[in-house]
Amino acid sequence: MELGMIGLGRMGGAMSQRLLQAGHQVSGYARSTDTMKQLEEKGLVAASSVEDLVSKLKPQRIIWLMIPSGKPVDETIGILMPLLEADDVIIDGGNSDYKDTLRRAETLRARQIHYVDVGTSGGVWGLENGYSMMVGGDDGVVSHLEPLFETLAPGPNKGWGHVGPCGAGHFTKMIHNGIEYGIMQAYGEGFAIMHHKEEFKLDLHQVAEIWRYGSVIQSWLLDLTAAALEKNPGLEGIAPYVADSGEGRWTVAEAIDLNVAAPVITLSLLQRLQSRDSDSFSDKLLSALRNQFGGHAMKKE
Amino acid sequence: MELGMIGLGRMGGAMSQRLLQAGHQVSGYARSTDTMKQLEEKGLVAASSVEDLVSKLKPQRIIWLMIPSGKPVDETIGILMPLLEADDVIIDGGNSDYKDTLRRAETLRARQIHYVDVGTSGGVWGLENGYSMMVGGDDGVVSHLEPLFETLAPGPNKGWGHVGPCGAGHFTKMIHNGIEYGIMQAYGEGFAIMHHKEEFKLDLHQVAEIWRYGSVIQSWLLDLTAAALEKNPGLEGIAPYVADSGEGRWTVAEAIDLNVAAPVITLSLLQRLQSRDSDSFSDKLLSALRNQFGGHAMKKE
Amino acid sequence: MELGMIGLGRMGGAMSQRLLQAGHQVSGYARSTDTMKQLEEKGLVAASSVEDLVSKLKPQRIIWLMIPSGKPVDETIGILMPLLEADDVIIDGGNSDYKDTLRRAETLRARQIHYVDVGTSGGVWGLENGYSMMVGGDDGVVSHLEPLFETLAPGPNKGWGHVGPCGAGHFTKMIHNGIEYGIMQAYGEGFAIMHHKEEFKLDLHQVAEIWRYGSVIQSWLLDLTAAALEKNPGLEGIAPYVADSGEGRWTVAEAIDLNVAAPVITLSLLQRLQSRDSDSFSDKLLSALRNQFGGHAMKKE
Amino acid sequence: MELGMIGLGRMGGAMSQRLLQAGHQVSGYARSTDTMKQLEEKGLVAASSVEDLVSKLKPQRIIWLMIPSGKPVDETIGILMPLLEADDVIIDGGNSDYKDTLRRAETLRARQIHYVDVGTSGGVWGLENGYSMMVGGDDGVVSHLEPLFETLAPGPNKGWGHVGPCGAGHFTKMIHNGIEYGIMQAYGEGFAIMHHKEEFKLDLHQVAEIWRYGSVIQSWLLDLTAAALEKNPGLEGIAPYVADSGEGRWTVAEAIDLNVAAPVITLSLLQRLQSRDSDSFSDKLLSALRNQFGGHAMKKE
Repeated sequence: MELGMIGLGRMGGAMSQRLLQAGHQVSGYARSTDTMKQLEEKGLVAASSVEDLVSKLKPQRIIWLMIPSGKPVDETIGILMPLLEADDVIIDGGNSDYKDTLRRAETLRARQIHYVDVGTSGGVWGLENGYSMMVGGDDGVVSHLEPLFETLAPGPNKGWGHVGPCGAGHFTKMIHNGIEYGIMQAYGEGFAIMHHKEEFKLDLHQVAEIWRYGSVIQSWLLDLTAAALEKNPGLEGIAPYVADSGEGRWTVAEAIDLNVAAPVITLSLLQRLQSRDSDSFSDKLLSALRNQFGGHAMKKE
Repeated sequence: MELGMIGLGRMGGAMSQRLLQAGHQVSGYARSTDTMKQLEEKGLVAASSVEDLVSKLKPQRIIWLMIPSGKPVDETIGILMPLLEADDVIIDGGNSDYKDTLRRAETLRARQIHYVDVGTSGGVWGLENGYSMMVGGDDGVVSHLEPLFETLAPGPNKGWGHVGPCGAGHFTKMIHNGIEYGIMQAYGEGFAIMHHKEEFKLDLHQVAEIWRYGSVIQSWLLDLTAAALEKNPGLEGIAPYVADSGEGRWTVAEAIDLNVAAPVITLSLLQRLQSRDSDSFSDKLLSALRNQFGGHAMKKE
Repeated sequence: MELGMIGLGRMGGAMSQRLLQAGHQVSGYARSTDTMKQLEEKGLVAASSVEDLVSKLKPQRIIWLMIPSGKPVDETIGILMPLLEADDVIIDGGNSDYKDTLRRAETLRARQIHYVDVGTSGGVWGLENGYSMMVGGDDGVVSHLEPLFETLAPGPNKGWGHVGPCGAGHFTKMIHNGIEYGIMQAYGEGFAIMHHKEEFKLDLHQVAEIWRYGSVIQSWLLDLTAAALEKNPGLEGIAPYVADSGEGRWTVAEAIDLNVAAPVITLSLLQRLQSRDSDSFSDKLLSALRNQFGGHAMKKE
Repeated sequence: MELGMIGLGRMGGAMSQRLLQAGHQVSGYARSTDTMKQLEEKGLVAASSVEDLVSKLKPQRIIWLMIPSGKPVDETIGILMPLLEADDVIIDGGNSDYKDTLRRAETLRARQIHYVDVGTSGGVWGLENGYSMMVGGDDGVVSHLEPLFETLAPGPNKGWGHVGPCGAGHFTKMIHNGIEYGIMQAYGEGFAIMHHKEEFKLDLHQVAEIWRYGSVIQSWLLDLTAAALEKNPGLEGIAPYVADSGEGRWTVAEAIDLNVAAPVITLSLLQRLQSRDSDSFSDKLLSALRNQFGGHAMKKE
């Protein structure tokens, strides 16, 4: 199929490559020209602007956005809208808030432009392994895009699905990431306990390797844990600082909105916040209070 | 090799079978004779008592315990001790508390009996897939037992390892189970949020299947989640009641002893406790307090 | 001073009474006429509608809203706006989301109507003990209202303060309620543990009474706990079901927005959600998973 | 009454003083002679050793221990045991683990020495305000000691009680401290959120003062919070490092043993552990994992 990819970073670039390898015609545009040049060698038709990209595509145009969520998506849709025609398709493959997706779909529906949200998992390994994709949108357009999903997926009829109407793809991906937070934190805690159990002198890389085969907790994140510990068994030089990119927060807010208690996903998010606050006001107040009532010495900063 | 298996339940029975299939000579004893009879057809030499089992083995005897942790292990070791000779080997493959293992090892060391702890993961799927085994014990004896571990493991030189001295095997398995609690709870919460998001009419089995291929959260527990949801998409008839068998509690206690904060593993345990307390005194008191200060109506039981 | 009170429920009714007792002239309107009649005997001038209430007041009018947060506040302000003149004052003494307060203040500022937010704590005991009030608004108008705050407060120059610009009063009250959730949950858990420690046959009312005098954890909520346990030591007939009225959720969301980890306030909210979900999908899935990997029996519903 | 106090630190010294002021005859012994000298001026009879202390008392001797829990208590009881006679009384007023108390009571019962556990709250303010005391022990001996409790308590027949058999006093005090952890953490989090809400420029000391009068969350710990924030509004120079002295851990362990979910008390403990671990291995692993799957940059140490 023919499509235009906007955003050629770690995700968009690799996805374009996987599509090109399978014979799809991919035009691409990115703000940075570096990856564009590399992808041109692999068959990508480079565009100099969003307008240029649109002009390179024949209707029914398919535009796939693989850009940071939030404002960039709104801005790009704003540029695209007057350039597109009825029946053209915009796909948002990034980590957008599903509520934004619902709003955007409505705006685009008024212009008869199809909007499809593709929650995409797989990270930097997707080029080789394929991507897991949760697709939201109308039946007709999703069927039409099937060849793209089949190419990007890990195998025929595997790892992707049409999960519901527009919004359902990003919703499901949000939950995916919330679960990811919880699983990562579970491994993190387990390995931390072993790290502190000095008497057994455990080789944490070895333990991770053992668990990779036959254990109840085998997983891809465990494979990555083993890889990280092989390279750097003591995790030397890595700051205990964990970023978050939004989906965890949205999952926590959604759970509360739905009156569902999700303590583990929630605590996983809070742990990340905490990893970035080395000067906790709360802890200071507790230290001051212990001094007030018990005369306990406060540690000085 | 020749060994005697005590305990022929879900785990011990399947392990015996896997060992027999590979040509090892396995004598076995279990309190219930049912599985013994089935295993006899597969080559097991059935013993009528622990004493009988010991008598069937030539020194250096290898006895593998696959029985419930706690008292049963102490009792069985108590029976075995006078029957065994110096250099014989007892393996505890169950989910014993590693502190019990340290204590037992010391007692047996005084009698020159080797003690080896094998944290064993794999559940009911181990017969087919092999077991993940974390082995604790002295170098010599663990080397000697290698052919058994290689047979039980999922593949050559995979899924098992000698992780440290006696106790380290059960310690590592305890952590494994703590992590397992956290991962299960993360999936549980994520699927619960999706279950309550009625507007998208998600097919939870489909979502689980999508995630199995290419996603960051692919895992064996996700495979099982997909299988459970395929059979029973609404989880009808299953009570929201989650048992626990001890390792989670030990992990939480160990983390606190080591001054390691493990909020996710801890909350996973507390969630299980809560699932079994449908009559929370704390919740009742909160309801009473809200009535006291705000005049809010209390729900009646 | 002269003021008009809209909402004469548990809070607004008692506040009107306290104001009347101190000699203020209070006109009042409420949808239900029951309390209005009782308050008329104590000097309240009853109004038949919001319009009637406004007509009874001389400019610079002071209207105090003591009504449920959300839509009712917006609707009432919508009715008031055309009836009021420049320099009139609307006070929102309810538990509004401070973000709504910021929005409303802006709308009213455009009409030169003053808006003052008063986070009010004290519950049904405020009539007798006075109210704790966190006031947000412009300096001039807050000074002008001082006689009202002094009357409602527990004592001269005590228990109320001008904490910041409009929004700061409701923000501070929101935090107050978040803390309240945490404290209540802490007592709830402590008493639940004692309730389950059957061997000591503790008299929980006695324990609460002991702690009320001289202990580090003495508090008003403990006084109420003691009162609740005196009346009903086993909390018989009270369902383990805890409602929440919004401020806890907002506090949790605010903490996450500010990147502040607030695990205890957060978990207190989740506990309330959980108290209302006796059919946890997550717990069911965990039970199904344990069955899948370990062959453990599932409890039937 | 006549009694011997062992341990004259912040707690034991102040309690001796309060007893002396009320006319009781107090002999005292402490390893450090500093406070002994000060107390001699107030009427204390100083002893040069435990033996000397015992020799100064007439049977039925009453010895009150106010020393660190754990080994010091066992050692002191070890010294006392041969020196005491049947019917003498040892009181442990410190923060002992109630399980140790049960064990010690049994040992002493065999020698017909009475053992009474007094969970004591009040901290450095007890001298002035009186102490809250939860007393465990046999009826007869507790009745006999009543004049001491009445003197130490905040007022006649207030703030102390005979809560159950030996062990019940320390058990109840342990729960008291668990609740204390939760309440402190709730305040800490609330004030931290306000501290980070820069747009309102809140004066946290002012807010604490407002809440002290008439609010639902008024408490003694809030009074202390206000005092701490008055002295040092930004908590400058205080490290975000919170110690713990054991009772929180015991409460968490006890809750789990009793199958009671106590998430808030538990998380309060974990938060303290975390405040002391500025080099979290778990956080490092999460950072490494995010790099592995998403190519996200890791912050360097």
